[in-house]
Amino acid sequence: MSKQLIDDLITKIESTEGPVADERIKAIANRIVKDLFYTIEEFDITPSEFWTALNFLGAGSKEFGLIAAGLGFERLLDVRMDEAEAKAGLNPNVTPRTIEGPLYVAGAPESQGFARLCGDEEVGDPLIMEGQVFDEDGITPLKNALVEVWHANHLGNYSYFDPSQEAFNLRRGIRTDENGRYCFQSVVPVGYSVPPNGATDTILKKMGRHGNRPAHIHFFVTADDHRKLTTQINIDGDPYLWDDFAFATREGLVPVLTKVGDPAEIAKYKLKGEFSHIVFDFTLHAEKANLPGADVTRARAAA
Amino acid sequence: MSKQLIDDLITKIESTEGPVADERIKAIANRIVKDLFYTIEEFDITPSEFWTALNFLGAGSKEFGLIAAGLGFERLLDVRMDEAEAKAGLNPNVTPRTIEGPLYVAGAPESQGFARLCGDEEVGDPLIMEGQVFDEDGITPLKNALVEVWHANHLGNYSYFDPSQEAFNLRRGIRTDENGRYCFQSVVPVGYSVPPNGATDTILKKMGRHGNRPAHIHFFVTADDHRKLTTQINIDGDPYLWDDFAFATREGLVPVLTKVGDPAEIAKYKLKGEFSHIVFDFTLHAEKANLPGADVTRARAAA
Repeated sequence: MSKQLIDDLITKIESTEGPVADERIKAIANRIVKDLFYTIEEFDITPSEFWTALNFLGAGSKEFGLIAAGLGFERLLDVRMDEAEAKAGLNPNVTPRTIEGPLYVAGAPESQGFARLCGDEEVGDPLIMEGQVFDEDGITPLKNALVEVWHANHLGNYSYFDPSQEAFNLRRGIRTDENGRYCFQSVVPVGYSVPPNGATDTILKKMGRHGNRPAHIHFFVTADDHRKLTTQINIDGDPYLWDDFAFATREGLVPVLTKVGDPAEIAKYKLKGEFSHIVFDFTLHAEKANLPGADVTRARAAA
Repeated sequence: MSKQLIDDLITKIESTEGPVADERIKAIANRIVKDLFYTIEEFDITPSEFWTALNFLGAGSKEFGLIAAGLGFERLLDVRMDEAEAKAGLNPNVTPRTIEGPLYVAGAPESQGFARLCGDEEVGDPLIMEGQVFDEDGITPLKNALVEVWHANHLGNYSYFDPSQEAFNLRRGIRTDENGRYCFQSVVPVGYSVPPNGATDTILKKMGRHGNRPAHIHFFVTADDHRKLTTQINIDGDPYLWDDFAFATREGLVPVLTKVGDPAEIAKYKLKGEFSHIVFDFTLHAEKANLPGADVTRARAAA
């Protein structure tokens, strides 16, 4: 990874700093972040090594995960992995990766082809999202691939971390059918901010930054002999769409969201009224030797 | 502070690395420490700023305090403060400072002139330590100065952090008398190591280092219009005397320890048998404007 790529990312991160509450803290934090970015590059530190170190320091604190996202470390790891794959000659025309974030919980229920992510009482605009999982040619469907999905509710909160929600609410695993198809019913998530007055909020405010994420849906997509894809799709139109505090929005991850009122379509999905519809396909790299693993080891919650 | 002084300290720290368990972790840790040392120097980061940042990251974890000591940060802060005082023209012939460590507890009982730091049942060699607190001329006694003393027991454990000990065991504050004199009765402490398999032990072992401290006694010495002295004295003869994992041993802080068996002396101190005797005087700088404060703000326990 060239010095220029790192400097570009640093420039992008620092450009998000508005009127600054504490010039000294901003300058010191930017210096430390820059030194650490160069250290990650110079020592070719893998994502798993990074998360091991973070866990060592933070003992699994959710705030450490948010700080790592907010200061750009998690984006840096993606930039580096993209470059490693490009250097290894991997097909660039696959679904872009983006950050995992600290809110995945292992152990969600799995189903075949289709899942409902929530009950009837869930507040929010009904959503149907569906598509296919393809091999890296973008044509060959991958059957029995696992699409793990998790997202926030209408208040921007995630089950498990928000104990008011049922276990695994808005979290499911869906196995693709023989045509590589997946489909789920849920509600459209909304954006959220880091916890007010928490460690991440505190440091970002001192640096003149906000801690808002645009509305998004997380995915792990895995299939035999393929590289694990960690990504998100964004809900188009969110005011923070291109101003994510975690730098995770990417071209190719903002699908069209269609409002559907046609009674035949509503009946097809067994819904009661208008819904939002997203069609999105995932394309995975075949696994290849001598590449950094795409299945990153980091501390994750498990319920 | 010159680059040379920082590099000298880094060389000293790295010279303690024996056969290394993990060359990669050692190299990465040394790189990060070096970058942070230079950042502390370049931004002239004060001790209070350093401890605020550490507390922000570690939320008061005792292991963070031990890592800061073990990786040389606490020693670096002392080297920098010594240099700031020298540049300001302060008298160099005062008692050397050394690190506070993370085990002070505020609120210990105070007494006038003399204190017993423990009860009759305390295991260990009886100790009498006494001396005077002087102004920076080394001649004028400072009356009503406060000598705060804390040290480990015969197992290397500190009250408060070791709940098996009584509150404030081996912790007292002693006000000097009209001649600046203080005296206390205790037992000779022994050295100890960082908690086995804790975070500090883990990182030090990976770097080929140990986490042992030689036996020592901690002091805060404060007097009106004088700079607070944070220091320790070492028990001579400890195998780790000059191999302290925290780099805190200094010339001038290793007083002679005399074994006293003379019945008249034993009777004078109302003891029952042979005891160890240390005579040690403290000399304090008069306070001066435009110097970094010697009364450092950091998170401390209070009972």
